[in-house]
Amino acid sequence: MELRKGLEDIAIKETSITYIDGELGRLYYRGYSIFDLASFSNFEEVAYLLWYGKLPTRHELDDFKSRLAEERSISEDISTFVKRTAKFGNPMDILRTTVSMMGLEDRSEGDLIGKAIKMTAKIPTIISLIQRTRRNQEFVEPDPSLSHSENFLYMIRGERPSPSDTRVLDVSLMLHMDHEMNASTMACLVVASTLSDIYSSVVAGISALKGPLHGGANSEALKQFMEIETPDNVEKYVMNKLSSGQRLMGFGHRIYKTMDPRAKILKEYANQLSKNEEIKRLFEIANRVEEIGIKILGKRGIYPNVDFYSGLVFYAMGFDPDLFPTIFASARVIGWTAHVDEYLKDNKLIRPKAIYVGDLGKRYVPIEER
Amino acid sequence: MELRKGLEDIAIKETSITYIDGELGRLYYRGYSIFDLASFSNFEEVAYLLWYGKLPTRHELDDFKSRLAEERSISEDISTFVKRTAKFGNPMDILRTTVSMMGLEDRSEGDLIGKAIKMTAKIPTIISLIQRTRRNQEFVEPDPSLSHSENFLYMIRGERPSPSDTRVLDVSLMLHMDHEMNASTMACLVVASTLSDIYSSVVAGISALKGPLHGGANSEALKQFMEIETPDNVEKYVMNKLSSGQRLMGFGHRIYKTMDPRAKILKEYANQLSKNEEIKRLFEIANRVEEIGIKILGKRGIYPNVDFYSGLVFYAMGFDPDLFPTIFASARVIGWTAHVDEYLKDNKLIRPKAIYVGDLGKRYVPIEER
Ligand SMILES: CC(C)(COP(=O)(O)OP(=O)(O)OC[C@H]1O[C@@H](n2cnc3c(N)ncnc32)[C@H](O)[C@@H]1OP(=O)(O)O)[C@@H](O)C(=O)NCCC(=O)NCCS
Ligand SMILES: CC(C)(COP(=O)(O)OP(=O)(O)OC[C@H]1O[C@@H](n2cnc3c(N)ncnc32)[C@H](O)[C@@H]1OP(=O)(O)O)[C@@H](O)C(=O)NCCC(=O)NCCS
Repeated sequence: MELRKGLEDIAIKETSITYIDGELGRLYYRGYSIFDLASFSNFEEVAYLLWYGKLPTRHELDDFKSRLAEERSISEDISTFVKRTAKFGNPMDILRTTVSMMGLEDRSEGDLIGKAIKMTAKIPTIISLIQRTRRNQEFVEPDPSLSHSENFLYMIRGERPSPSDTRVLDVSLMLHMDHEMNASTMACLVVASTLSDIYSSVVAGISALKGPLHGGANSEALKQFMEIETPDNVEKYVMNKLSSGQRLMGFGHRIYKTMDPRAKILKEYANQLSKNEEIKRLFEIANRVEEIGIKILGKRGIYPNVDFYSGLVFYAMGFDPDLFPTIFASARVIGWTAHVDEYLKDNKLIRPKAIYVGDLGKRYVPIEER
Repeated sequence: MELRKGLEDIAIKETSITYIDGELGRLYYRGYSIFDLASFSNFEEVAYLLWYGKLPTRHELDDFKSRLAEERSISEDISTFVKRTAKFGNPMDILRTTVSMMGLEDRSEGDLIGKAIKMTAKIPTIISLIQRTRRNQEFVEPDPSLSHSENFLYMIRGERPSPSDTRVLDVSLMLHMDHEMNASTMACLVVASTLSDIYSSVVAGISALKGPLHGGANSEALKQFMEIETPDNVEKYVMNKLSSGQRLMGFGHRIYKTMDPRAKILKEYANQLSKNEEIKRLFEIANRVEEIGIKILGKRGIYPNVDFYSGLVFYAMGFDPDLFPTIFASARVIGWTAHVDEYLKDNKLIRPKAIYVGDLGKRYVPIEER
């Protein structure tokens, strides 16, 4: 039996959802380049594409948008829970718990994608309620006349965002929607393969995404830039970090051996958003970390990943740093559920083995004789 | 790249926790045969063994027992939540949510096993509260002077159980504590490998255990026996089920190609518990299903597994059928956390791949032209 810790280069399924070209740094959703989608498409259209496998017609899109918009409200129970825990709880713990509550509450026989739509619609409401509760601000009811991203920013800020801010969030969310077989998607599949329900799968996805080696890296990356304080400190900081065996957060990827295409797009947006002093300085620091990081790690194929610039973008948009992984989850829920849906069409229980390296045949000794 | 759906025969880690001999039908925890442990040991001792790798001395066991006993109370928030949801909620959904709440509440820096002890101690309290709330019975506070299993039954029944009943539950829980690399343990590891927290891991484990191909099978197996009604109906029922392509619940296993040793032990207990008419009849039905099932499926290595008789035992002990998977979880949490602890000593992100089989290079077409 082969020991394959990490499951590197093992394919758990066939897919027609997402393709990553790790050498060239290219990413495709359903065959469409992420660069094209980021330039021409939008949140609702790409969600539709991932779930249903094709770009919607005008009629399909309108229908789909209203379905999503109608599902944004959260239950009284969930809202009470968020308000009670927002000030001390880790946002990913709150999200994990509240999505689990949704599963408990949803007693409909609805199809998998129908339930996925509900989660996708409600998660931004939860995130906004967390942030506003912490800031002692009144909850802003979702507005069904707004697009997904416009409404998300509206609930966070309490006022309608500009079209350009809406566009930044829209593109950021599209970039986070799916990424083939990452750890959180794998967690979702393992759960789904026992024929458990889709909420349970997504709860497992959130649980995995929380880790700093995965979705937790975006807030860690920003924390780094904040700690560094000025561009002049970058070189020393990076050297210290790496020579003490720590990892540069927002760098490195199992598949990409070059710059992550999502990082390229997000870098451009971070640049555009560098309007005030703080963001400008953080962006300069990030640029310098990128440069020095690539100089040292690039030859080993370790380059900036999606989480390197995304935190900066989310921060500039007005989100608290520890909420970043929840924003990631709010988009990735689409990929998770699309992959579960695809996997269940030909399910096989995911049940690997372990290689036993302990003793065998030990004799049980009564406690008096130990 | 190899397609390995289900990860059959792939080892995700080395372990010195559990060894399964699938050909001979043998199971060992830390090198001790499950038959010996079921005969001579007890819940606390085996939990200690799995976590710490050795049988405890008297002093260590006493210490450990009081640590476990002290942690049985649940927070006001969790208790209120259980009471509000017990009458309509799926017990695994309630357990998944409340363990997630525990993670949110526990802001201690405590070690992984310390947190595992808390979960292990509290889960029976949650299960008992679910069942008693549904039956309109008052909550019974945990009694720290009782052993784990004695207290569990005491909280369920509201009166102290007999030593022989306590022993049945004690052994049943021991048998469920670990089983090498099953789907729920895999879910826990995937989550842990991102360096997420131990509560998130266990929440993923519960999410996976819920499925009817895994821990959900115990209540499904009992449901089968109830549907069959009398031993005379067995043959027709089994034939119908199998010829319509359905699975016999409580039969089959990725690793065992013979009778699961846990099923042997549980069958013996189910027999002992066949005191009243209903249980006796169900036991007779189960026996007949076993016989006919083996006759048809045995040549393909499909035999009764742990879930075949466990439901009958839990039912005879006074648990509601849809609670069975939560009882399974109350024991398996020990195996989950022991494996996570072992894996994290040499962590590697679990990140497989997928084989892309869709189109590439599609051109984005504006919505008006679709
Ligand atoms: C994402 C990540 C877990 C993928 O790693 P992986 O495929 O499992 O590879 P490993 O963790 O085994 O790393 C391979 C080698 O590269 C090094 N490495 C990987 N990422 C590194 C980083 N960000 N900084 C410094 N060294 C890094 C490792 O130390 C290891 O070196 P070694 O072989 O000398 O021990 C890893 O790059 C990482 O931890 N990155 C930082 C966290 C992060 O940004 N995560 C978000 C990913 S989208
Ligand atoms: C546990 C289980 C998922 C393991 O299965 P696996 O290793 O993934 O193997 P598969 O599901 O691919 O089954 C292999 C073959 O055996 C058959 N099989 C397996 N278990 C069966 C059962 N309980 N009844 C009837 N047929 C069964 C399958 O139909 C399949 O047949 P095929 O090759 O003709 O399609 C499977 O045995 C099962 O579904 N059992 C019933 C649920 C259960 O009791 N689960 C608790 C396990 S502890």
